[in-house]
Amino acid sequence: MSESVRKAVVLVSGGLDSATVLAEAVAAGYECHTLAVDYGQRHRAELAAARRVSEGLGAASHRVVGVDLRAIGGSALTDDIDVPEEETPGIPATYVPARNTLMLSLALGHAEVLGSLDLFVGVNAVDYSGYPDCRPQFVVAFEALCQVATKVGVEGGRFRVHAPLISLSKADIVRRGTALGVDYSRTVSCYQADEDGRACGRCDSCRLRRAGFEAAGLADPTRYAPDA
Amino acid sequence: MSESVRKAVVLVSGGLDSATVLAEAVAAGYECHTLAVDYGQRHRAELAAARRVSEGLGAASHRVVGVDLRAIGGSALTDDIDVPEEETPGIPATYVPARNTLMLSLALGHAEVLGSLDLFVGVNAVDYSGYPDCRPQFVVAFEALCQVATKVGVEGGRFRVHAPLISLSKADIVRRGTALGVDYSRTVSCYQADEDGRACGRCDSCRLRRAGFEAAGLADPTRYAPDA
Repeated sequence: MSESVRKAVVLVSGGLDSATVLAEAVAAGYECHTLAVDYGQRHRAELAAARRVSEGLGAASHRVVGVDLRAIGGSALTDDIDVPEEETPGIPATYVPARNTLMLSLALGHAEVLGSLDLFVGVNAVDYSGYPDCRPQFVVAFEALCQVATKVGVEGGRFRVHAPLISLSKADIVRRGTALGVDYSRTVSCYQADEDGRACGRCDSCRLRRAGFEAAGLADPTRYAPDA
Repeated sequence: MSESVRKAVVLVSGGLDSATVLAEAVAAGYECHTLAVDYGQRHRAELAAARRVSEGLGAASHRVVGVDLRAIGGSALTDDIDVPEEETPGIPATYVPARNTLMLSLALGHAEVLGSLDLFVGVNAVDYSGYPDCRPQFVVAFEALCQVATKVGVEGGRFRVHAPLISLSKADIVRRGTALGVDYSRTVSCYQADEDGRACGRCDSCRLRRAGFEAAGLADPTRYAPDA
């Protein structure tokens, strides 16, 4: 392993944050293996974007793991609950139960198979303060779990869960990704994008994204639907 | 909630251990919601057994969540690696990467949707000492994760991950389940059971199970294949 490149598993959703994380991991010199989770989300255009972003940023491999979360329900993203189009206080209806725990579990399994000790995830505690599993405490607890849950951890390998965006504002994220050459027009953040990946411009995610570009003083390259 | 019954999410595999855990949870007075994970395992008869066991022991609901683990591979249970038929030192080839982390993540998501704080899992550190995610350290770390990963945990709800079999021998498990009325002929433990759920009698799991009944001085009700 002396001269070999360190492998990383990078969770990608097709959105702005995870594209930025992938660019960071690539810039840090990791051989990046991206993992998208198809959990029955309504915004299928995300998955196409996840592949496009992975290829565009030079990931070594890209996998899609299917998880049928509809069986346990509970979110506007997988159920027939309306996606909120106005800012909502507290934890949003788009919260998917245990989503980041689940996605990191899959990333951990993939890392074990690949012989990787580095997981990258685009969680962010600033814009998504309502999501319990987007906070530093969660990342720390998952990192501790990796050590005791895996063969390599038990044998002394040291896992790291990298969450480089966790304390950044959306404007900071957009600035950083732009400096790293991320083409944000390839990403889809919208909770209800159309089949071509064009954004609604109204959901929480669209509003945060648009405000981020504005605050960063950068042009918004997002592809919006005609009625957005 | 004062007089309401506490709900529990019980992970069931169709095997002997999880059937015993379900019987324990039912006996403890929980309203039990069972969850089986279809992770592309070769022994499909397990899933049929999981439903049969859940119904037989009076679970309030039974769900199957599909996860396509083949995309990340790495185990004899999902890949085209041969299932070992002799005792193997160290971590067995049947180890599924991050399996219990993943299954508990799904249980956690289901618990959150149901308003349950109690997860039950049939991990056992005695017979499966080679599995990192079957040890008390793992259970403790996952319980800690639940607190910070969820809305209810952040709001002060106290999660418990119950692993009542963790320090029991297979003989103890079989004795306990028999006392609780578990019909073990309904369960399938074999890693390569046939379509009717009949056991091979040769794999690690079959050998441990058979030895358990012998050590407990109980008749083995397992349905074996003609060539077992």
